[in-house]
Amino acid sequence: MRIGMLTSGGDAPGLNAVIRGAVLVGTSVYHHEFVGFTDGWKGLVENDTLPLTRHEVKGISKQGGTILGTSRTNPFEGRGGVDRINEVFAENRLDALIAIGGEGTLAAAKRLTDAGIRIVGVPKTVDNDLDATDYTFGFDTAVQIATEAMDRLRTTGDAHNRCMVAEVMGRHVGWIALHSGMAAGAHAILIPEQNTSMEQLCAWVQSAYDRGRAPLVVVAEGFTLDGADEPHSERGLDAFGRPRLGGIGELIAPMIEARTGIETRATTLGHIQRGGTPSAFDRVLATRLGMAAIAAVNDERWGEMVALRGTEIVRVPFEAALGSLKTVPQERYDEAALLFG
Amino acid sequence: MRIGMLTSGGDAPGLNAVIRGAVLVGTSVYHHEFVGFTDGWKGLVENDTLPLTRHEVKGISKQGGTILGTSRTNPFEGRGGVDRINEVFAENRLDALIAIGGEGTLAAAKRLTDAGIRIVGVPKTVDNDLDATDYTFGFDTAVQIATEAMDRLRTTGDAHNRCMVAEVMGRHVGWIALHSGMAAGAHAILIPEQNTSMEQLCAWVQSAYDRGRAPLVVVAEGFTLDGADEPHSERGLDAFGRPRLGGIGELIAPMIEARTGIETRATTLGHIQRGGTPSAFDRVLATRLGMAAIAAVNDERWGEMVALRGTEIVRVPFEAALGSLKTVPQERYDEAALLFG
Amino acid sequence: MRIGMLTSGGDAPGLNAVIRGAVLVGTSVYHHEFVGFTDGWKGLVENDTLPLTRHEVKGISKQGGTILGTSRTNPFEGRGGVDRINEVFAENRLDALIAIGGEGTLAAAKRLTDAGIRIVGVPKTVDNDLDATDYTFGFDTAVQIATEAMDRLRTTGDAHNRCMVAEVMGRHVGWIALHSGMAAGAHAILIPEQNTSMEQLCAWVQSAYDRGRAPLVVVAEGFTLDGADEPHSERGLDAFGRPRLGGIGELIAPMIEARTGIETRATTLGHIQRGGTPSAFDRVLATRLGMAAIAAVNDERWGEMVALRGTEIVRVPFEAALGSLKTVPQERYDEAALLFG
Amino acid sequence: MRIGMLTSGGDAPGLNAVIRGAVLVGTSVYHHEFVGFTDGWKGLVENDTLPLTRHEVKGISKQGGTILGTSRTNPFEGRGGVDRINEVFAENRLDALIAIGGEGTLAAAKRLTDAGIRIVGVPKTVDNDLDATDYTFGFDTAVQIATEAMDRLRTTGDAHNRCMVAEVMGRHVGWIALHSGMAAGAHAILIPEQNTSMEQLCAWVQSAYDRGRAPLVVVAEGFTLDGADEPHSERGLDAFGRPRLGGIGELIAPMIEARTGIETRATTLGHIQRGGTPSAFDRVLATRLGMAAIAAVNDERWGEMVALRGTEIVRVPFEAALGSLKTVPQERYDEAALLFG
Repeated sequence: MRIGMLTSGGDAPGLNAVIRGAVLVGTSVYHHEFVGFTDGWKGLVENDTLPLTRHEVKGISKQGGTILGTSRTNPFEGRGGVDRINEVFAENRLDALIAIGGEGTLAAAKRLTDAGIRIVGVPKTVDNDLDATDYTFGFDTAVQIATEAMDRLRTTGDAHNRCMVAEVMGRHVGWIALHSGMAAGAHAILIPEQNTSMEQLCAWVQSAYDRGRAPLVVVAEGFTLDGADEPHSERGLDAFGRPRLGGIGELIAPMIEARTGIETRATTLGHIQRGGTPSAFDRVLATRLGMAAIAAVNDERWGEMVALRGTEIVRVPFEAALGSLKTVPQERYDEAALLFG
Repeated sequence: MRIGMLTSGGDAPGLNAVIRGAVLVGTSVYHHEFVGFTDGWKGLVENDTLPLTRHEVKGISKQGGTILGTSRTNPFEGRGGVDRINEVFAENRLDALIAIGGEGTLAAAKRLTDAGIRIVGVPKTVDNDLDATDYTFGFDTAVQIATEAMDRLRTTGDAHNRCMVAEVMGRHVGWIALHSGMAAGAHAILIPEQNTSMEQLCAWVQSAYDRGRAPLVVVAEGFTLDGADEPHSERGLDAFGRPRLGGIGELIAPMIEARTGIETRATTLGHIQRGGTPSAFDRVLATRLGMAAIAAVNDERWGEMVALRGTEIVRVPFEAALGSLKTVPQERYDEAALLFG
Repeated sequence: MRIGMLTSGGDAPGLNAVIRGAVLVGTSVYHHEFVGFTDGWKGLVENDTLPLTRHEVKGISKQGGTILGTSRTNPFEGRGGVDRINEVFAENRLDALIAIGGEGTLAAAKRLTDAGIRIVGVPKTVDNDLDATDYTFGFDTAVQIATEAMDRLRTTGDAHNRCMVAEVMGRHVGWIALHSGMAAGAHAILIPEQNTSMEQLCAWVQSAYDRGRAPLVVVAEGFTLDGADEPHSERGLDAFGRPRLGGIGELIAPMIEARTGIETRATTLGHIQRGGTPSAFDRVLATRLGMAAIAAVNDERWGEMVALRGTEIVRVPFEAALGSLKTVPQERYDEAALLFG
Repeated sequence: MRIGMLTSGGDAPGLNAVIRGAVLVGTSVYHHEFVGFTDGWKGLVENDTLPLTRHEVKGISKQGGTILGTSRTNPFEGRGGVDRINEVFAENRLDALIAIGGEGTLAAAKRLTDAGIRIVGVPKTVDNDLDATDYTFGFDTAVQIATEAMDRLRTTGDAHNRCMVAEVMGRHVGWIALHSGMAAGAHAILIPEQNTSMEQLCAWVQSAYDRGRAPLVVVAEGFTLDGADEPHSERGLDAFGRPRLGGIGELIAPMIEARTGIETRATTLGHIQRGGTPSAFDRVLATRLGMAAIAAVNDERWGEMVALRGTEIVRVPFEAALGSLKTVPQERYDEAALLFG
C-alpha cells in the first residue's frame, strides 16, 4: 500500500512519535510506502510532499513539533475539496491517508470519508478536549510542563508572600488547569466549565494566605469571570489570530490584589506548554496510536480513528469524537475543589 | 473519626501525595483526626506514632519518599498479630486504618480485615504489577526517569558506535522496561514474562547496528536468559537483602559484545528510578487515591482498596489485587516487538 | 558569636544554600549562634526573628526561594536607621550581621558599616549585574530555565514556521538574554546595552527564515527599541510595582510580523526564571559563599562581601560592587552577534 | 581556508556545540570550508570524512554526543604518523586542523605541531582534570546530572533510613564528586586525591545517621581505600577496556553496613553522566570555544588551545595542559569537608 500522512492544527508533543510508529511498522512489517504532506491539509491540497521512509523518522519520537509541519487550514478551502483530493490521491497512487489532528481535522476527514476517500484518523489535542478517548497525547506533557513551572512559581511566591496566578492553556475546557493545579497543590483552579465569582476566588486566596501559604491560583485561558458580559473564550484570538495581549491571568491578578490586599503576580505559561520533548507517557501513547493507525489501514477501517480506553488502543468512528467537547465533569471539579482554599 | 495511616514496602514517588490528599480532605472537610505510624507495620505493632495534621502535609506532594517512613516488615511478625493491633487501635482510639502498600501489605491487610480490623487500602508498586488497577502511582515517574536516562545513554552510544544496555526495575514483571523501552526507541526489550534467546537478542542488536544505529537494549532486572538453569528473579537479593552485585544487564553486555563484536556497555539505573519528585501524572493519581481512601473510610468499606480504572477511581476488594501479578500480556509485548531490531 | 542573617530584594535560586552553608559551618565548626530576620531589612528594623539552627536549614539547599522571606524595603525606611539597628543588635546580642542582597542591600549595608555596624555581605542578583564578582548565584539557574523554555519554543516554532520571541529577565543588563540566547541558538538577541533597529532585527529574522529555520528572537525585558522616545527600562513597573502588562516581547512581535510577513508569537517567561530548584552550579557557588561569609565574620572583615573570581571565593569591599552595573561588554555582544541571522 | 575537524576520546556534552560554533562562524563570517573526520584520529589517518557545512550543524548544540563520532585511537597508531597526516592534509587541501579532545589528544597534537602540522586545540574532559582552563565543557552537565540523581537517591534513602552511596565519574580526580556532593549536601565525599580511612568514613555516616538523616556518600570511581594494596584507579578497566563490574561504590557499601549496622545501598551513575542535552552553561562555553578556535586558526596560532579563564576565553600553548592533571586542591577539599558528617 501507499499511505499518505499529514498533521493538522496546533502542534502537540507526540506528533513525531505517531509518525515514527506508523512509518516504522508500516515499512518494516507490511512494506507499505509513505508520502508525507507538508503543513497539514494545505500540503495535501497543493500536493506538497516530503519523503517519509525509515530514515526520516530516525530518533524523532523524542522531538517536539512535527517533521511534516502543520497549519490550521482545512481541505475544503481554496481549490480544495473532494475532487482535488481524489486527484492528489491518484497522482501519488495513494491507497489511504492517515490524518492526525483535532476536532476540525476529524470533522473534515469525516466529510471526505463520507465522499468515499479512504482516511483513518489519529486524535490530537493538547487540551484533552476530544470525546471518545481517555487521553490525547501531548496533554500529559503540557500538564507536566505547567506543573514544573508552578513548582517554581510557588517558591518565589513563598519568598515574597505573594499570590501567584498561573494562566495555562485551555480555551474551551479546563483539563490542563485541573490536572496541573491538582499536581501543584493550587489553592484555586478556574476553568471555563465552571462559574466562579471573584468573591469565592478571593475567599480561597485569603484562606490560604491566612494559613501562612503563598496562594497559587491556576486559571485556564478560556475561563470567564462570572457576570462578565463577554466570554473570554471569544477573546482568545485577535484579528490576526494571535492570542490577545493580556489574558485572563493578567486580568484577575490586580483584581485579587485590590480585593484582598495581597500582592499578586500573573504568569502566562503560553507556548512553552506545547513544545519540546514529550513525556514518556505521551511517547508510549503516541507510538501505540501510530502503530494502531497502520493496523486500521490494513483492516480498511475508513472513517475510524484510534483512541485510548483504559490501557487499550481501540477504534471509534469519527463521529464519536465530534459534536461535543469533552469537558471537565462536575464531579472531577468538585473532587479537586475539596483541596481549595 | 480517628484514622491511622501507614506506608509499607519499597517507597514509590507519590506516597506523600496520597498522605496529603487523605489528610487534607479528612481534616478540612470531615474533621477527622489522623495518627501516622512510622516505618510501616513496624510502627503500628510498636505503636510508634507521628503527628499528622494539615501542617505536616504542607507542600509534600512534590516530595519523593514518605514522611511516615517505610519498611518491609509485616504485622504478624514478632509481637504483632490481630490482638496486638486491636490493642494499638484502642490505645490510639482509632476508628480505621489506611494502609498504603503493595501485594504483601494488601495480603496482610486482608488477614487483619478478615479478623474484624477496619482497614482501607491504597495500592502501591513502582513496578505496576498489581492487578485490579490500570496503573499504580510511582510507575509513571519511574518510566519517565528511565526514559530520560536512556535518552542520555543513546547520545553517548551514538558517539562511540556502541551498544548500550540499560537495566531497569522489574523483578517479576516487565512494565517499566516495556514502557521506557518503547518511549526511548529501544531496539530490544527483555522482560521476565518472555523467553528471549541470545540469538534473537543479538539479531536485533546486529540489525540496528547494520543500519548505522547505536543499539539500545532495555532489560528488566528480573529477566532470565533462555536456558539458564536458575531464575535471575531468585537472584535479585543477596543474603543481606541487597540487590546482588552485577545484575542481568552486566551479565548480558559482554555476551552481546562477544557474539556480535560490537562494543557494549551496561548501566544499571537502580535506586534513582524510585526516588525524587513524582511526575504530574503520579501526583494527580496519588492525590485522588488519597482522597478516595477517605471516602471509602467514610463509607466503611473495610477490606477494599481504591484503584484506577480508565479515568475513574473505583473500589475493589483486597482479594482482587492478590493471587496473581499483573504481567505484561503477550499482545502488548508483540506490539512493542514490531519496533525491535 | 551571635550572627544575624537576612535576605533582601528579589529572590534568587541559591539563597537557601547560602543560608545553609553559613549556618552549618557557623554552628558545627565555630559554635556560633544565628538569628534569622524575616523579610529582609524589614525584619531587622521590626526585630521579627526566626530561629536558625542546624535543624531549620536541613535539606534546604535544593529549595528555591528563601526560608527567611524577603522584601524590597531598606533599613532607613520608617523607624529604621542606625540607632534602631544598633538597638536590635543589642536586643539580640548580635556580634555581626550577614546581609544577602543586591546593589540596594549592599549600598545600605555600606552606610550602616560606615556608621560602625558590623556587617558582611553576600551579593545576590539573578540578572548578574553586580560588578566585582564573575557570576552571582541564581543567574545560572535562570539561564538554564530560559534555555529549556526556548528549546520548547523552537519545536513549536518549527512546526508552524513561526518566528518565536522570548522575553527574559534583565531590566538593566542583558546577561540572561545573552547566555540563554547563545545556548538556545537564537537568531537575534536584544539587550538594554545595545541599540538595535527594527530593520536590523527583521534582517536577522528574514535571513534565518529564508534558510528554512523558525527564527528565535530573545529580548531582555529592559531592551528599548532604537528611536523610541521613552525607555522601556523605565516602563518596567507600573504604579503598583508590578511588571507592566505587555512587555517588550509582546510589543515587538507584531512589528516583526507586520514588516516581514512571518507569523510571530511572543512568550514572556516571567517569574518562572527565578523560582524553583537551583542548578548544581548555583548550589555550589551559594554554599561556598555562605561558608566564606562565616570566615569573613570570623576575620571581622566588616564592610566586605564575598565574591567569585575565576574558581576562587575572594573578598571585596562593598564599594567595589556599587556605582556601576556590570553590563554586557561590547566584545561579548559582538561575539554572540557573529551567530545571528 | 579549508579546515579539518575531529573529536577524540570519550564523548562529553558540548562537543556538538563546539563544532557548530566553529562551523557557523567559519563559514558565514570567514567563508572557510570544513572537512569532518569521523571517529577521532582514526578518521584522519584513514581519511574518512564527513561533509561539514552549515546544514550539518543545524540545531546540534543541544544534542549530546558528537556528530563526527569519536574513538580513543591516537594518530601515531597503525599506519598513522606525521607523513600520513601530511598526506591526508594534502589530499583534502587542508590549511589547518581543529582537534577537540583531552590530554591524550592534546599530547598527540603537540607532537604533530612540533613536526610542522598546523593544529589548534579545544580541550575536552568531562572530569575537568585538564590544567590551564578553569572548567571544561561537559563537566557542568555531568555535575548537574549527578546532583539530580542524588536528589532522587536522598528521598528513597530517607524513606528507608538507609545510607546511600553514589559512585560518580572521576578516574583520577575528584571534581565531579566534589561539586555534585557539595550540591547534593553529601555527608562524605571520597576522591582519588585524598586518603580517607574506613573509620573516618563511618564516623561521618554515623554522625549523620544519629542526627536522623539518611547518610549520602559520594565516591569518585578512582577513589582507593586507605591501606588497600592495589589502587582502584588501576582497576578501572578490565581487559576489554570496560569499566570493571562492581566499582568502588559497590565495594564500600557493604563495608559501611558491616561496620555501622546501617542498611546501605550503592548506585553507580555510570554512562548517563556523559550523555544527553548539555546544560546551558556548557552550551555557552562550548560555543565560545568553537568560535575562539576559528579566531586562533585565523591568527595561525598553531600549537595553542583555547581555554576558559574567569569569564574570558584565552589561548594557551598545548604544553600548559600537559604534564600534570588538575587535581582537587587541598583547600577545596577541606572547605567541602567542613560540611561532612
